[in-house]
Amino acid sequence: METMTIEIHSGKRDEMIDITDRISDAVGEIGVADGVVTVYVPHTTAGVTINENADPSVVHDILAALDMAVPWHQSFYRHSEGNSAAHVKSTMIGCSLQVLVREGKLVLGTWQGIYFCEFDGPRRRKVIIAVR
Amino acid sequence: METMTIEIHSGKRDEMIDITDRISDAVGEIGVADGVVTVYVPHTTAGVTINENADPSVVHDILAALDMAVPWHQSFYRHSEGNSAAHVKSTMIGCSLQVLVREGKLVLGTWQGIYFCEFDGPRRRKVIIAVR
Amino acid sequence: METMTIEIHSGKRDEMIDITDRISDAVGEIGVADGVVTVYVPHTTAGVTINENADPSVVHDILAALDMAVPWHQSFYRHSEGNSAAHVKSTMIGCSLQVLVREGKLVLGTWQGIYFCEFDGPRRRKVIIAVR
Repeated sequence: METMTIEIHSGKRDEMIDITDRISDAVGEIGVADGVVTVYVPHTTAGVTINENADPSVVHDILAALDMAVPWHQSFYRHSEGNSAAHVKSTMIGCSLQVLVREGKLVLGTWQGIYFCEFDGPRRRKVIIAVR
Repeated sequence: METMTIEIHSGKRDEMIDITDRISDAVGEIGVADGVVTVYVPHTTAGVTINENADPSVVHDILAALDMAVPWHQSFYRHSEGNSAAHVKSTMIGCSLQVLVREGKLVLGTWQGIYFCEFDGPRRRKVIIAVR
Repeated sequence: METMTIEIHSGKRDEMIDITDRISDAVGEIGVADGVVTVYVPHTTAGVTINENADPSVVHDILAALDMAVPWHQSFYRHSEGNSAAHVKSTMIGCSLQVLVREGKLVLGTWQGIYFCEFDGPRRRKVIIAVR
């Protein structure tokens, strides 16, 4: 199994950063023709997801709806760092994702892009990419 | 890695369609004895999940609770297609799932079924199945 | 593909049980140096996630926020067992997770632990671990 790590610098508290091209490049460098790529986020206040990369308003709406479902301030939060909502969103969205690779290319739908999800930025983050 | 694609026709805006038998048949056709099957939905307003396939009221309750957590109409949505909630649900539920295969059969719990989740139907959809 | 099954006894309705060491031990016993471990929960009112294992208040806040987003009692629930919220949370969090293995060890971030999520306890549960 070959792995690569990429670095990401987020700029806002909540942000979805399109990393499709970076995953695609990593898969190309690793040089596997057919298999599965695992995209892994080693953080507890971030995640990884797949969604539309055509209209940027989709990303806005996803982040706003998550913020409505899991408000930043809730009276019952106990975690002293004050970023409990980010932990909840990380668990809701997930930190591990699998995408198929065929003939050296990511198998994505027409409108699909892979997004790193920052829920407690700005921060320096890592994403691990493994292909088998 | 062997892959198969199946077609699904959804009939409602929100719908969970049991695709366990179709995944199971695909795994049988591909003919892998032991491994992992990846079920991949190449859409941004749909998803894939595992839940109870005994009492149909469970599916009703899941869809209704998701609709309550992520309402179809919210004042802050900007995406002009009007289906932002479907994008949010897709990201919450996920479009990629892994199930183990042992002796050519899906390793599922007693009550578990695999569901294609339609969040913006009715539509024609695809599901990609890959076994390794 | 080698698999192992571990048993878990949950003690509350909602509970996140840290199973990192048990997964790690299973990976060690199976003896794979490099690969991917699939952690699979064969239940429909439980799940598996990765989040912080340093401050226990994080777990409290995650369970409380999920309970707020998906209340235990909602007028539209039809499922007669009365545990619909547990089914919804199971589908939101997911029952299948992949973690990388390198040199025989789980590749986890500094603060990451693997949690079995009980949403309808107390119960006896199983977790299947498969390494490739």
